[in-house]
Formats: sequence, C-alpha cells, structure tokens
Amino acid sequence: MKALVYHGPGKKAWEEKDQPQIMRPTDAIVKIIMTTICGTDLHIMKGDLPAVTDGRVIGHEGVGIVEETGTAVSNFKKGDHVIISCITSCGKCDYCKKGMYSHCSDGGWILGNLIDGTQAEYVRIPHADNSLYPIPADADEEALVMLSDILPTGFECGVLNGQVKPGDTVAIVGAGPVGLAALLTAQFFTPSELIVIDMDDNRLDVARKFGATKTINSAKGNATEQVMALTDGKGVDVAIEAVGIEPTFQLCTEIIGAGGHIANIGVHGKSVTLHMETLWSKNITITTRLVDTVTTPLLFKTVISEKIEPKKLITHHFRLDQVIEAYETFGNDAKEKALKVILTNKS
Amino acid sequence: MKALVYHGPGKKAWEEKDQPQIMRPTDAIVKIIMTTICGTDLHIMKGDLPAVTDGRVIGHEGVGIVEETGTAVSNFKKGDHVIISCITSCGKCDYCKKGMYSHCSDGGWILGNLIDGTQAEYVRIPHADNSLYPIPADADEEALVMLSDILPTGFECGVLNGQVKPGDTVAIVGAGPVGLAALLTAQFFTPSELIVIDMDDNRLDVARKFGATKTINSAKGNATEQVMALTDGKGVDVAIEAVGIEPTFQLCTEIIGAGGHIANIGVHGKSVTLHMETLWSKNITITTRLVDTVTTPLLFKTVISEKIEPKKLITHHFRLDQVIEAYETFGNDAKEKALKVILTNKS
Amino acid sequence: MKALVYHGPGKKAWEEKDQPQIMRPTDAIVKIIMTTICGTDLHIMKGDLPAVTDGRVIGHEGVGIVEETGTAVSNFKKGDHVIISCITSCGKCDYCKKGMYSHCSDGGWILGNLIDGTQAEYVRIPHADNSLYPIPADADEEALVMLSDILPTGFECGVLNGQVKPGDTVAIVGAGPVGLAALLTAQFFTPSELIVIDMDDNRLDVARKFGATKTINSAKGNATEQVMALTDGKGVDVAIEAVGIEPTFQLCTEIIGAGGHIANIGVHGKSVTLHMETLWSKNITITTRLVDTVTTPLLFKTVISEKIEPKKLITHHFRLDQVIEAYETFGNDAKEKALKVILTNKS
Amino acid sequence: MKALVYHGPGKKAWEEKDQPQIMRPTDAIVKIIMTTICGTDLHIMKGDLPAVTDGRVIGHEGVGIVEETGTAVSNFKKGDHVIISCITSCGKCDYCKKGMYSHCSDGGWILGNLIDGTQAEYVRIPHADNSLYPIPADADEEALVMLSDILPTGFECGVLNGQVKPGDTVAIVGAGPVGLAALLTAQFFTPSELIVIDMDDNRLDVARKFGATKTINSAKGNATEQVMALTDGKGVDVAIEAVGIEPTFQLCTEIIGAGGHIANIGVHGKSVTLHMETLWSKNITITTRLVDTVTTPLLFKTVISEKIEPKKLITHHFRLDQVIEAYETFGNDAKEKALKVILTNKS
Repeated sequence: MKALVYHGPGKKAWEEKDQPQIMRPTDAIVKIIMTTICGTDLHIMKGDLPAVTDGRVIGHEGVGIVEETGTAVSNFKKGDHVIISCITSCGKCDYCKKGMYSHCSDGGWILGNLIDGTQAEYVRIPHADNSLYPIPADADEEALVMLSDILPTGFECGVLNGQVKPGDTVAIVGAGPVGLAALLTAQFFTPSELIVIDMDDNRLDVARKFGATKTINSAKGNATEQVMALTDGKGVDVAIEAVGIEPTFQLCTEIIGAGGHIANIGVHGKSVTLHMETLWSKNITITTRLVDTVTTPLLFKTVISEKIEPKKLITHHFRLDQVIEAYETFGNDAKEKALKVILTNKS
Repeated sequence: MKALVYHGPGKKAWEEKDQPQIMRPTDAIVKIIMTTICGTDLHIMKGDLPAVTDGRVIGHEGVGIVEETGTAVSNFKKGDHVIISCITSCGKCDYCKKGMYSHCSDGGWILGNLIDGTQAEYVRIPHADNSLYPIPADADEEALVMLSDILPTGFECGVLNGQVKPGDTVAIVGAGPVGLAALLTAQFFTPSELIVIDMDDNRLDVARKFGATKTINSAKGNATEQVMALTDGKGVDVAIEAVGIEPTFQLCTEIIGAGGHIANIGVHGKSVTLHMETLWSKNITITTRLVDTVTTPLLFKTVISEKIEPKKLITHHFRLDQVIEAYETFGNDAKEKALKVILTNKS
Repeated sequence: MKALVYHGPGKKAWEEKDQPQIMRPTDAIVKIIMTTICGTDLHIMKGDLPAVTDGRVIGHEGVGIVEETGTAVSNFKKGDHVIISCITSCGKCDYCKKGMYSHCSDGGWILGNLIDGTQAEYVRIPHADNSLYPIPADADEEALVMLSDILPTGFECGVLNGQVKPGDTVAIVGAGPVGLAALLTAQFFTPSELIVIDMDDNRLDVARKFGATKTINSAKGNATEQVMALTDGKGVDVAIEAVGIEPTFQLCTEIIGAGGHIANIGVHGKSVTLHMETLWSKNITITTRLVDTVTTPLLFKTVISEKIEPKKLITHHFRLDQVIEAYETFGNDAKEKALKVILTNKS
Repeated sequence: MKALVYHGPGKKAWEEKDQPQIMRPTDAIVKIIMTTICGTDLHIMKGDLPAVTDGRVIGHEGVGIVEETGTAVSNFKKGDHVIISCITSCGKCDYCKKGMYSHCSDGGWILGNLIDGTQAEYVRIPHADNSLYPIPADADEEALVMLSDILPTGFECGVLNGQVKPGDTVAIVGAGPVGLAALLTAQFFTPSELIVIDMDDNRLDVARKFGATKTINSAKGNATEQVMALTDGKGVDVAIEAVGIEPTFQLCTEIIGAGGHIANIGVHGKSVTLHMETLWSKNITITTRLVDTVTTPLLFKTVISEKIEPKKLITHHFRLDQVIEAYETFGNDAKEKALKVILTNKS
C-alpha cells in the first residue's frame, strides 16, 4: 500500500509500505476512506515530537471500512464503515474504566505517533471494539471525520472542562481549527456571549459566521481591556485557551472572572508564569486535558441530528495521494485560509 | 472598651477604643467570648497587607454573645451565643446567591481588615443574619471558634476543591494550622492514604496523631521521589497546597497523578512557574479559593455530633488582655509548638 | 386601589382594596405594570387550595415599578423596574442558603396564596432584595413576565432536574404553558430529539413551532409504543411530566430508558402507582420540585441576549381591569388556543 | 466437578457437573476458593425468578484462582487470585462505556442466573478482563468476597445514589446484609446521624455495633413519628430502602425531608403507591439501581487500607460441600443470627 512516511525532521514521503496485519485478537485492519491533517502532524514533521521515529506513518484521524478483524473483535465486521478515534482505548485498564482513555495503559494517543497511523491506504487499529465507532448507511462521512479528534478535543478539553452553562460569558483565545471546534460545541450549552480572540482577521470573520457574538483582534489593541470593557469589569465565566503559548495563557488568567474556569486545550512547549499572587483568592479553576474521546457517541448524535455542522470546518479537498500538496496548503493556513483539509482515498 | 489596634508595620497596642455601634439595620454588636489569632494577622502586623490602615482593630475569628441588633436582623436577638464568620455576606448580591460569599459585593473578608475586627471586647458584624451562626446551649465554644475560619478554609479550599473521595491518595503540603484543618476534614471522605509533607518534625508528629498515614520531612530528602515511591510512580489523586510559596506549589505539580486535583489554600505573595509543557496532557485541575464559609452549617453538624474534634488544633490559652503575649507565642510557632491559641474575654 | 379578590370557590371580583403598606424593613411596595394568570390560579378559583382564604388578592407573576422600600432594602429604590418572583426568599434561612428558596422558612410560594398577590394595582413584596430582580432600561418587559414563574418552573423542575444533555432524547408529556416552557429551555442543552406528547393537536402544532422534533397525540394511539418505536425500544433519556395526573406519570415511567431521569413538574392532587417491580433495576431517577427561582439571573441573561424568546408563550393581551374576561379566555384554553395572557395596568 | 444445581422450585442438589470450558476468547475459568449465598439465591430457590431454569448452577459471588484464560484475556493469567464480580461487563457496549455495567448488552447480572454460577468448584467468567479484579498476595480473601456484590450494592445503590454527605442525617430502612453494607459504607462520608430501622432487635444490635447512632424497632411503635421527633420534624436528608416492600418504601417517603434523597436498594415484587399529592412540592429525588460494580476498585482500596472491615458481615463458615446446610442456616437468618456465610472450597 501507499502511506505518508516520516523520515526525520523536515523529511516525509508518500511511498510504498507493507500493508498492516492483525497482530492481536483485538485488532482490526481498516481501509481508509478519508483522512485529514492535524496541527500536531505539522509539529511532528518539524521534529518537535522526538518519540515519533523515522519510518512512522503519520495521521490519527479518519473514517474507513473494516477490512479484517481479530478473533476477539465483536462490535465490528468486514465491510462496516467506521470513525477512527485518535485515542486508542483498551476499555479494561484503570484509566479506561474512569473514562480517561487518553491515559489508557495500553493505548492513549499512539496512532501516527508510536504506531503507524491513518495517512495511508490501510491502518491497524488496536483495541478496535473500543477505538472505532460505527457509521450508519446514510451518514455524511466527511462531517464524521471531524469526530476523530478535533470536535471531541474542543468539546472535552474546552467546553466540558470549562463547564460552560446557559447565560455564561465565554472567551475563546485562538481561532484555529480547535478553537473553532470549541466555538461550535460551546453553543450546545447556550452561553449568552461568545467572545473569540485571535490575531488573524480572516479567522475572526469565520468565528463570527460560526456563532461568535464578539471578536477581538489581539494584535490591534489590548485584548484584556476590551474583554473587561465587555464584561463590566467582571471578567468572563469561562476562558478557553486554544493556542498553547504563554501570552495566550496569560490573557486567559487576566480576563477570568472570580469563580471562573480556565480550560486549557493548547499544546504547550514551555512553562508559563502563573500569577498566584492575584489568583489565589479569585476562586478559579484551571484544567488541562488530552482529549479522551469519551464524548464521541454524544457528539455523533448531535451531528446525525444536525444540531451541529462540523463540515463548516472543512476548507480544502485533496486526493489521499496528493497528501504532500495538502500539507503545503495546511501549513500555510493563514495565506490559504485553511482550517481542515479532507484527503480522500480513491484507490 | 479595650481592643488590639494596629498602628502600622510592627506596631500594635491593647488599648481603649470606642465601643462599636449599630450603623445599619442589618448590623449586630457582639460581645466577644473567645477569639484567636490567624497567620494572616501576623502578615498584617508586618505590613504585608497595605489595605489595613493605622487604627484598625485586628481579628476575624471568634465566638460571642449578641449585645444589640439592628431593626432588620431577624435570626438573632440580644443574649444569643454566636459563631462569628471570618467572611461577611449580604446574602443578596450575585456572588452570595451563587454561594461565593468570599466575593460578596458588600462583604467578603472585611473583618479585621477593612473594618474593625474581633480581637476586642466588642465587634460590629454587618449583615449579621448571614454572617453569624447560632450556638446551642450546651456546645463547646472553644471547639466552635475553629469554625470562624480555619476549619472551613481547610475544608472548602483544600478538601472540597480537591474533590477528595473514598480510597484516594491525598498529599497535604504544609502542616501548619490550615494544613492540619485540611487533614482533619479530608477524613470526612475516607481517603486510603493521607501523606503530609512539612519541614518541621514536630508538626509531622502532630499530623500523624491527627490521621496522616504517612509523613515526609521535605528538608531531609527529595519529597517528590518519596511520594512517587509511595504511589507506584503514579502520583497522588489530590495535592493540597497549604503554604503559599513556589517550592510547595511546584511540589504539588510534580506529585500530582494524571487526572488529579491540585487545591491551593496558601496565600501567595509572588507568581509561580507552571510547567504546562508537561501538565497540558495530564488532565489535571488546579483550583484557588478564598474561603466562602458556605460549609459552616455542615461543619457545625460534624462538630456537634463529634465526628471531628477541632479542639485538637488548640495548643495555648490566654486571657484576651494578654493578646500581645499571645502574639509572641503564636509568632514563634515552631519553638512554642503553637497551632491555635485561644484568647478568652474575662471582662 | 383595585385588585382581583378571591371570595371562596367560584367567586372572584375586581374590586377596591386598601393599598398595601410596608410592614417590615425588608418589604417593598411595587406598582404593577403587567401581570398574567397561572394554571394554579384556576385551581385556587375552584377552591382546590384551601389555604387560600376569602379576601385574598390572587396572582404571583408580574413586572412592576418600585413605589416604596423598607429601611433594610438596599438592592432597589423607588422607580426601579423589577421582575416579581413567584417565590419569596429571605436569603438567610437554612433552605435559602442551600438554594432551595421554595422552602424558605419565611417565604416560599406565599404570593397570591398566603399573602396578597399581583393581580392588583399594587403589591407588597416581602424580602424584596431577594425576591425582586432588576430590569434594565431597554428590556422587553412582556418577555420578562415569563421569568416570574413559568420559565424557571419549566427549566428547574423539568430541564435541570431531568439533567438534559447534548444528544439526549427527551420526552415532554403535556404541552400546556409549563410543558412548553420546558420545551423552550430544554433546547439550552441541545438534545437530539424532543418528543412532545399531548391530546390537543393545536398544542402539538405549537410545540413543533417551538422546537419539538416529534409530536405524539396520545388520544389517537398508544403513546408508549410510539415512543419505543422512535427510540429503538430503548426508551428516552429524560421524561418530563408536565400535567400532574396518574396516566401521564405512568407514561413517563413506561417510556423511560435504563439510566434515565423522570422530572415531575405537574401539580398532583392524588397518589400514583409506581411500578417498582420493573423500575427497581432500571437505574432511574425520579425528581419532584416546587420551583426555587434560583435560575432567574441565568434565565434573565438568556432572554436579554435573545437565546430564548419567551414572548412566544403569550397569546392574548388584556387591560388589568379586564382580568375577569382574561380568566374566561385562559380558562377556555383549548377553545381559545390560549397559552399565557398578559394583563397590563393602565392606571 | 461438584456444584450446587437448581432443579426447579424447592429443589436443589450438590452434584456432579461438567467442568466449564473456555467458550470465547474473552472468557476465563476460575477455580473457586470461597463463595457465599445471597438473599437473591433464596428467591431463586423458591422459584421467584423464572428466568433461572432447571440445571443451572447458582451463585454470583466469590474469590478464586484463574485456571485458564481465553486468547484475548490480558489482565489475568493462570494462578492469579481474583475477586469475581456479580456483574459481567464487556467494557465496550454503550452501557458499559457510561459505567452502567448492570445493563451491559452482553452481560449484566447473568452469573448464577442466565449462565452457571459460583457455588461450584469451577466457574466460567465471560469478559474476564472487565469482570474479575486482581487480589494481591497478602490480602484477606474472606473480606474481599464481600466485594463481589454486597458492598458495591449497599454503596452504589444506597450511599452514592442517596448522595450522603458530611453532617447529613441518614435513615437506613432494613438491617439485613445489604442494609448493613449501606451502613458501613455510608460512614465513608461522615454523616452526623445514621438511623437504622428494622423489626429484629438482634439486627438493630448489630447495626449499633456497626455505627448506627440511633435504632428504631418499627414493630414496636410508629417509626415515622420517631424519626420526625429525632429530626425536629424536618425529616432525614437521605432515606435508604433496603427491604423491597411497600411498607418500607412508604416509610422512606414519609420520613424524607424537603430536598432529600430516597435511594432504593430493595428488590420489589409488586408496585407501590407514591404519594405525589404531597411529594410533588418537596423537591425530593428517588433513585433505583441494579448494582453496576463500578466502584469495586474504590472499595478495594478502602478494604486494603482498613478503612472498612467488611468481614464484620460474616457470621458463619462452611465447607463448600456443606452448601445445602449453609442454605438452611442462611434461610433461617433471624433464628441463626446469620448475615453472610462463607463457603470454602477444600477440594
């Protein structure tokens, strides 16, 4: 088969690889129908994730068709259409039993990281019964690719951890794909105000179309002051960090109101300064989370019943064998106005 | 009347003051029976809290007898014995209605801070109906002084925010009075392990007597390594910070397990470094809180039914007019093995 | 002033009454701008509530202008426009401190029940600071009348107690004003399916316009079978009872899925049979609740930000002095297609 | 092997059966070390559970040694000592993913019911990875037999569903083994009062030894009146029903305070009358639950750390081949003062 293979920092190739085989009774082999590229894949390609080694097939999102199943797989059979979760979960370790699949002792985020991933014609999915989700006959599979990672990430790490509730004032810092996924899913809980903050006017335009009630370009003025002005000096109920750098994290701690929740989604490469000298008495909560994908069934129902339209996040389409070109586009997201790109396997 | 008056950094006096008067219909005047000294009072005396000005009567804890009530006070009448809450709450602002009395728009922590306090023969209590709690005839009033501040602080900021549950492994960093109050109240939820960490062997001895299952002297070895060894490398479910400086906060972030809760109680004077580069994917929660005293009724029931013995925290007794001497003892807590000192008004 | 006075079963009059006076420092006198009629008022008029005695002014909903305040009232002053809550809460008893205003030891539902109510030109509101809510200058006061009772009742007793969450299948049994209020506010949490069941086709039409995804006329077939067919035999996640009789309660227990929540809103006059022989192992939750109106501030924010349009519930308008006629219309709700009627004080 | 076999109402025999074999890759065969008898087993023997058919091996509790594992079992291997959960869970159906193992679509309570059980020398355990729990080398296995069913049943259905919290007044109606398991585990949350109600003075004696603060013999007076007298007429915060008949259920609804929780554990054979005409406005919650055993890991930690001593529940010991005699004793529980009987396999 053909697959996108990482060959060390800056080097990747669409090349021939052995087709994956069932290795354990709980495995399934899935033929990819569609996949996509994540911001994390760009980090991998730069060499920022040293655990990813030369020869690895990248990618942790996608929908596909079950090609083969191990003897212990009972939820799926050959021919079933499935959503591939970015998180592999065994369903039987202490962490899985607590719903913390991200820390599964025989899984977690391993796909396109510690084992070969989905930017390929075929992929092996360990613990298939717990790590795949069935797609009904008439569903829109492009929309469902967004359930692999981005929608549960925005929802679990941002919206649920932020405890968004009706009437709240919510700020989302960062309007990239994950911040926009938080924006879409925050509306499940009917906040009164959804303030989106970014430095890219195009993304802020998109945010308004997706439901932001206010937008702030933080490159063009003091965002903290603007948020405080919008909230009568009280600050927001929920601040969602969807970037992963110190300035955006600081902004969240400056605009959070007493009793508020800061929900971090961003992947941080460095430490941040936490101003406990002011925060200690503000009764705030800060959360971090690697997505667990425990809400995939819930999100699936909201997509199928058209309460949310995740296809809005898709800006570009390519054939899977154009994956190198797709990386170019996705890597120049500001110029290309790219959010999510769909790669379709025509083989 | 006589009262302990702050006269700027390092200067205090037990001196004559005008007896407080009813100023608003919701006020009560309370004659002090017993009061105590808080670590915060030492900070005030050093000049660390510039909002406290020359002439202020210090103190925010105590039990007393209602001497007079304003026309709108209905829960109390002259002669009633009462617990004085360190937090004044109006019961009718947005924050009070959410149970966040600490941020009451006409209250919060004002006693012995922005208005005259309880280290005096009499004190004026604003919003008396919501800021006092009744004491039944046969109750042990010394035990109930601990309900003014220290017990709700340890319980709300440490135990409730830490979400301690049966079977948990809990670490408490700092075995001063507030850390010990967290230790006592954490046992309400039956954790399996209660690890207390401090640099003072005497306090660790006390902690073991109060229910710690393990103690670690962090001056004598690497506390992080010891906690990790005790938890099979997984870290703790709950880490309670009861000091308020960077090293103890860092320790909490090092020993916290995936999915765990860090509950900050300590009053911080400076910022801390937060290692988001490792924490972002650990699914942790960090909370801060100024005590709300919303659990005073609950704690009262546990004291009256003898589920907890807060008198254990009392190490020294003085007459109220010996308050200067009491500050000496409390200020030399390590040498004097002092936790809480009781000051009794014999006038 | 003029007021609607109850004179025993079947007898009421729009007649002269003494204008109410401040009786306690926490009282306010409010001049009524608009009021409305509740289903409970019809029960009172029939004599179903013996606690309501001859001479009582009826009505527990409305918006008005503060005319006078007692000396302890600090949140409001003469001239302020206010929402009158159907529940009076002192803010300082054990129940109020727990957020259970419905059981306030000096309040609860007393307005138009144990004390004179709002279907009058003026009304006395005890504990005004906690029982009134401010209206900003430009707000739509007709919409806000719905915040006195019907919206918090549908939301708290039905939606919150039912724990509606995104993706859920929710059934609402009874499409009267309260059932429709539950229907409107259930959408705050983005359920996938909202099935409304009633015997009146007009009300089911309204329900569809208000967001019901399915409607069932229970007079024209077996509702249980239809719900089971719609849910693959699994039953619903949440069943909201908004009638108050045995058949509708039974229906809820028949259609509830394993792990589901039955939230009772209906006012019951008789006992019901509970089939514990089948329910004991179904892991269900049944809740009852008299509205607490603790969510009034939250609901206010959703109305002001136009996340919900409670004016949809208003079908008829009258002058306050036409109140007898308004009762006629509201009492013939099926024929008149009446939901909520607005009575405006032109005096 | 030998096993206790059900042969229709009133007929059982300790007789030769084929040793169970691995049927699916997720199965394990466990050699029984110890088992016990449940009240439900008595119902089976009477013929009350028609789903149990002639030839079935009874029993759903026990500890044992893994004899053989299917190819997909990874948590256990031959020789491991294990707790057998009364609930079989696949870990991968919708219900299991929600933590509702009791309704597992390929499990639930099937052991000694729909498939052969544990009152035998060997038992086949489906979905072994999720339905067995490991026992460390030095653990007290007799205590751990109580984790198969009775302890999680009392804890999940009674204490957790009842939402027992510190300072609460809790009533437990029924002091049989399950009521006593609720009594032991309710103390995890430090209620102030634990009132146990039963008609057997011996059981009430046991209850006091196990931590009841008050006991009421409901055969000797009006239990409702006594509870109301003990609670200043307010009723209890939590009422746990541990019998399963109308009078005890009614008692719970009579003694529940406003805002309280009724947690049903009892297995009901008939419907009950629910007095909605008084309960509709009392803001109460009624829950039902078949045990999920999701708290087994938590309970295991409390047993190992000696926070609870479930061995207290064991009153009699037999050899497994004396099982018929053990049934006699357990069936005459009042006369024999029997709670739990331990059956040890000496083969």
